[in-house]
Amino acid sequence: MNPERTEVSSLGEFGLIDHLTKNNETRNASTILSVGDDAAVMDHFGKQTVVTTDMLVEGIHFDLMYTPLKHLGYKSVIVNLSDVYAMNASPAQITMSVAFSNRFSVEALDEFYEGVYAACDKYSVDLVGGDTTSSQKGFIICVTAIGEVAPDKFVTRSGAKKGDLICVSGDLGGAYLGLTLLEREKKVYLETKGVQPDLENQDYIVGRILKPEARRDIIDFFAEKEIMPTSMIDISDGLSSELLHICKKSETGCMLYEEKIPVNDLARQFAYKLELDPTACALSGGEDYELLFTIDQKDFESISANPDISVIGHITEKEKGAVIITKGGNEYPLTAQGWNALK
Amino acid sequence: MNPERTEVSSLGEFGLIDHLTKNNETRNASTILSVGDDAAVMDHFGKQTVVTTDMLVEGIHFDLMYTPLKHLGYKSVIVNLSDVYAMNASPAQITMSVAFSNRFSVEALDEFYEGVYAACDKYSVDLVGGDTTSSQKGFIICVTAIGEVAPDKFVTRSGAKKGDLICVSGDLGGAYLGLTLLEREKKVYLETKGVQPDLENQDYIVGRILKPEARRDIIDFFAEKEIMPTSMIDISDGLSSELLHICKKSETGCMLYEEKIPVNDLARQFAYKLELDPTACALSGGEDYELLFTIDQKDFESISANPDISVIGHITEKEKGAVIITKGGNEYPLTAQGWNALK
Repeated sequence: MNPERTEVSSLGEFGLIDHLTKNNETRNASTILSVGDDAAVMDHFGKQTVVTTDMLVEGIHFDLMYTPLKHLGYKSVIVNLSDVYAMNASPAQITMSVAFSNRFSVEALDEFYEGVYAACDKYSVDLVGGDTTSSQKGFIICVTAIGEVAPDKFVTRSGAKKGDLICVSGDLGGAYLGLTLLEREKKVYLETKGVQPDLENQDYIVGRILKPEARRDIIDFFAEKEIMPTSMIDISDGLSSELLHICKKSETGCMLYEEKIPVNDLARQFAYKLELDPTACALSGGEDYELLFTIDQKDFESISANPDISVIGHITEKEKGAVIITKGGNEYPLTAQGWNALK
Repeated sequence: MNPERTEVSSLGEFGLIDHLTKNNETRNASTILSVGDDAAVMDHFGKQTVVTTDMLVEGIHFDLMYTPLKHLGYKSVIVNLSDVYAMNASPAQITMSVAFSNRFSVEALDEFYEGVYAACDKYSVDLVGGDTTSSQKGFIICVTAIGEVAPDKFVTRSGAKKGDLICVSGDLGGAYLGLTLLEREKKVYLETKGVQPDLENQDYIVGRILKPEARRDIIDFFAEKEIMPTSMIDISDGLSSELLHICKKSETGCMLYEEKIPVNDLARQFAYKLELDPTACALSGGEDYELLFTIDQKDFESISANPDISVIGHITEKEKGAVIITKGGNEYPLTAQGWNALK
């Protein structure tokens, strides 16, 4: 018996919506009409509107055994904001739809929404609509993020050209290593009931998978330095896969240098401990939500001013293909192996 | 063995997206960048942007035993467009996210998307993004619709005032009766394997539940006649529930006349056959996707010109409450019983 458990059915659909949105604040002038009608209304005041959507499914994208609901709410917003930033745009509104089975109480949903509102607050985004419904099994989340960008200032995947520098923000591979650690500890826990997970000194990589951030600072930096990347994408599936998207859409090749790929020291040490190749984690691990972009060489100096941006290679002509030069000096074709390659 | 079955895994995620969007057309000048990047970009050229989202879950919102996937694709778009029209706005873009288990083949998804594209075509809407992912169980759909409206021309639920006429488009209760019929035939079929469903002469009500339309014509009529409803909502949960939303948001009461509630003759006959009250089906049945709205009395003559709009009551002061006058002249409080009351 849990005295803190309130059944969703005791509130009803509309009561639940009122409950979950009672402290919802509006932060953007562009939000004309928010939650509570058939639709929300926005006015982007002469700017263009950017829209992106992502679905997260329990058992496919997250495991509630080691994912606190608050972190899940936070992350489900972040992954969408990351897509808006990857267009060189600023997110302004989100809609949040959730389907959940009757194993979830009002308190559980409150925890989830606490994370949602924390992300909205941190990134100055308004929650303007959504849907709350039942599922036969598990927790399913669908977020749509809406952003704004000055006309023709958006950056696609298709503008990279020969000679452009390939850049990435932050560091890569950490989220995959965090997930590997959590999966390992889950296995130990299930096999030896009562043994508490050993996550000591692994805050960094665990944080990378459970509580990622979106790189608003990089977009702000571009605006400040008047840099317009020639192409951009966010890293959700791993560096290889994303870089190949840019090459395909831009009809180019690329040359990537293994030694330039940024990997955090704590992540690298943990990879070695597991006998994993840190570079493979960066290339194929995914979920880092860093920004991968290309710039014209003339912008090299401006970019150098930012210690959180690494130049990791350059764009070549299509015929050269997509290649990586290893630390040992060997050249290999870049392939999108995705997560499976690591499992 | 079905020679027509292609496993989704044989295409991979990006191959599947290419396959499903290869004939995707752009119809709106406001669609600047469509499917294929981190986000889509729209320019609503001095108009305000309207956004709404809905989630549909197999086993909760639809039963694939009697719902053809093509109709499901169509309907999942329609229910969102209906919300945009209910704001007095015009839908221009949608995003479509689907999660599905491995029981769904590429051919099944093609059928679903055939319906999605048919709705986009009929309502001149562009599919500009989405997500395709796995589920552990069943088919889950999340659609976001984006529309445009001239500044301050949008209509909310909160503007109704004493003396306004309550109007509804089309007829009500048909969708609920269609669903009742399909559920009955499903039961017969499961209990007596091989007996084919008896849907004869019930095309109208079956069409109302499986292939609803959104009332663009009513919004066009308002524009043509320069009518601005004082409040508006679309009927997804039943007339009672929606009218109570308007009264609550507008802080008014209402008086509804049972004899004025439009019910189609075929639907009425089928209701009597099942010994159901047609009025109860209209009040609590839901899923009709008609528009419920209030107008100032000065617009009565303009509205009368449209045979597809019925005046069914009027708005009263809050203290009078929400009431219905029956055909027999009795007065009852209007309650939102929802679907459960009918089951």
